[in-house]
Amino acid sequence: MGYNLPLVSAGRSAALEADQSDALAPYRNQFVITDPALVYFDGNSLGRLPKQTIAHLSTVINQEWGDGLIRGWGHGWYEAPHRVGDKIGSLLGAAPGQVIACDSTSVNLYKAVMAALSARPGRHSIVSDALNFPSDLYIIQGAIAHYGNVHNLQLVHSHDAELTVDLSAVEAAITTDTAVVLLSHVTFKSGYIYDMQRITAHAHAHGALVIWDLSHSAGALPMQLDSWHVDFAVGCCYKFLNGGPGAPAFIYVNRQIQDEVTSPIWGWFGQKSPFAFDIHYEPAAGIDRFLAGTPPMIALSAVESSLDMIVGVGMHAIREKSIALTEYMIALFDAHLAAHGFTLGSPRDAAIRGSHVSIRHPMGYQINQALIAEQKVIPDFREPDNLRLGLSPLTTSFTEVWDGVDRIRATVSAGLHHKYPAARKAVT
Amino acid sequence: MGYNLPLVSAGRSAALEADQSDALAPYRNQFVITDPALVYFDGNSLGRLPKQTIAHLSTVINQEWGDGLIRGWGHGWYEAPHRVGDKIGSLLGAAPGQVIACDSTSVNLYKAVMAALSARPGRHSIVSDALNFPSDLYIIQGAIAHYGNVHNLQLVHSHDAELTVDLSAVEAAITTDTAVVLLSHVTFKSGYIYDMQRITAHAHAHGALVIWDLSHSAGALPMQLDSWHVDFAVGCCYKFLNGGPGAPAFIYVNRQIQDEVTSPIWGWFGQKSPFAFDIHYEPAAGIDRFLAGTPPMIALSAVESSLDMIVGVGMHAIREKSIALTEYMIALFDAHLAAHGFTLGSPRDAAIRGSHVSIRHPMGYQINQALIAEQKVIPDFREPDNLRLGLSPLTTSFTEVWDGVDRIRATVSAGLHHKYPAARKAVT
Repeated sequence: MGYNLPLVSAGRSAALEADQSDALAPYRNQFVITDPALVYFDGNSLGRLPKQTIAHLSTVINQEWGDGLIRGWGHGWYEAPHRVGDKIGSLLGAAPGQVIACDSTSVNLYKAVMAALSARPGRHSIVSDALNFPSDLYIIQGAIAHYGNVHNLQLVHSHDAELTVDLSAVEAAITTDTAVVLLSHVTFKSGYIYDMQRITAHAHAHGALVIWDLSHSAGALPMQLDSWHVDFAVGCCYKFLNGGPGAPAFIYVNRQIQDEVTSPIWGWFGQKSPFAFDIHYEPAAGIDRFLAGTPPMIALSAVESSLDMIVGVGMHAIREKSIALTEYMIALFDAHLAAHGFTLGSPRDAAIRGSHVSIRHPMGYQINQALIAEQKVIPDFREPDNLRLGLSPLTTSFTEVWDGVDRIRATVSAGLHHKYPAARKAVT
Repeated sequence: MGYNLPLVSAGRSAALEADQSDALAPYRNQFVITDPALVYFDGNSLGRLPKQTIAHLSTVINQEWGDGLIRGWGHGWYEAPHRVGDKIGSLLGAAPGQVIACDSTSVNLYKAVMAALSARPGRHSIVSDALNFPSDLYIIQGAIAHYGNVHNLQLVHSHDAELTVDLSAVEAAITTDTAVVLLSHVTFKSGYIYDMQRITAHAHAHGALVIWDLSHSAGALPMQLDSWHVDFAVGCCYKFLNGGPGAPAFIYVNRQIQDEVTSPIWGWFGQKSPFAFDIHYEPAAGIDRFLAGTPPMIALSAVESSLDMIVGVGMHAIREKSIALTEYMIALFDAHLAAHGFTLGSPRDAAIRGSHVSIRHPMGYQINQALIAEQKVIPDFREPDNLRLGLSPLTTSFTEVWDGVDRIRATVSAGLHHKYPAARKAVT
């Protein structure tokens, strides 16, 4: 590994030294940081704004739209969903022509689930797990309702308080009646990383299709969608891909199955010849058929700008730093937080841990509020007791990890959280 | 009417005078116009960029995202789909709580079609017309395939070369077997305006639901969705609403039916309590259930900025100018273009004509190319022979209409179009 972890016992200065020798540290300066004292542990919910995105959006808004008007299409707007998709694909181990950037994660997941169910008629089981995003389960439930409630959603439950999943239990749930297996590559609470290759192979051995939700792994860790023979994947661009609030999402459909599956949404950009204005729909060849409406050019441009930086860094280097950050975070947790009623909510084994560390505390919700209001620390609370600490490799520094843990410790030591309400409101 | 049409025989100076006395003329200065000599007749395909949108987007990008980060949600991001939706609704005769701005027009139409078919089980007919957007017909075809091909799409054909539709023929197609009637309020080629109230009432008398596509009427003409008892409507924000390329679209669901219908896409923003992270989906009350994923905040902010201006002007004033512009265009057509092989492709009766004028010519495709390449005129070509001239009331001036027609006449007189290819490529 290219990182020597800062010694916990050496305090903040060791973190500062680690930043100085970190080859990725300069990237932090390529993002807008208006308050250097802010500890931002929520890049896994909304990534920071790359400086180059400001300039790029200005070009798209002023030149391409304002000056170009409809001629803006000559600036590569048609190709944008593919061009941006291929850049995303390069981070996912996907050769060109298999990823498009479009719609929201939910809509793309809907397309994938409907397409997969349609491609596996006569099978009645959909396998997922209780650690998955509820939103993914909602999409499945909607699809089940839609197909007349002939499918069952089989949820594999965690054996260790939502921390990890017993892969053999997932495998046991997959049978020759399984139409599709839908899982999050990195689970959103504990950050557990699924063995995508193993589960995909097992599903295929039983004739099932797989859909992986990469929302918490795209831009955080390398993967090999093509060589692992993944069927479908979807993911979000506003987390580790830094594409901006509500950025367009993406969908991957393996080239091997592209011509056998169809999107339920027969949109004009998914039509073979959209500008022939033929009144009979014929799906485009390849991944294009999963496009629906007009590309959202401003939002898509923000995604592309950020990707250009991330692709330049490469997933290997990003993953190395991610592991160093989470390892350091856990070492600090053991030294400074474990004694204050916290338990670790993420795997200790870096090989199965994504780019965030969850720490759990019975008063987690109150602590979350105190940190935001009084300590310039922004974590992310997830029911029932998780403080999710996202470490975004290009923007999070080792010093930030030190400062964050130190302020969490100070908050709990001083009991600052006791004055905050325990009731949950709809917040981040 | 508040406009005295410029006398065609008085030439360009009459158009200049009309601009000087036009109460809406100052709005043109509120848009980015980099080339005053450009005649832009394509605001019905991509509306111009409002100057205030540049400043507003800068605030959203730099302050709300860059500085606010996840705290950006405190800047009204949750409410944005409703807040923007209600502003759109105010242009459509829709009381608050019935319109949301989200997804693309195609995705919203898909939701509406699927919801409507699901609400009318046992009925097998879907009525539309051959003048509708092919993209709308694709969505219907997809829905039909999806429900197992038990529905028939009945397309009413135009009796006068795609100019208008015989309303009694549409009515005759609607029976007690009709599940849903889906039509474009303003047809995209001829600009014909449907009698929305009449068709809606007729459909309801037969127990059918209606879906109106407002892409070419929202922001161009007033309507009364509520008092006409429309069930569903969808539309686009990048045309007359000037929301930017690929802007989020909108969907209207009448309050009377909101709790009886469900979106096929069970997205987390359509869940009753998205941040409770309950794993069982329960649809939100009201229009919320038609939301899917996270609101696209940058793109949505561009829509909102433009709407703030349009709502301030009001649809009555906009429609008055729209009629004046199209009347003037047709008067100029009669005087200067009819003798050059053009025929009028839009209704002469302003009461059934939207905010564009189509002119047809056997060499329309070549003329379109010559105008763009040599004459600084941007029309919009639609198969087989339509030059669609969009007149956007807040940005198009009477002088622009004069200049545009004059340059079309000059182009055809000089035969400038003969050197351009007749073969159609995928262009605007």
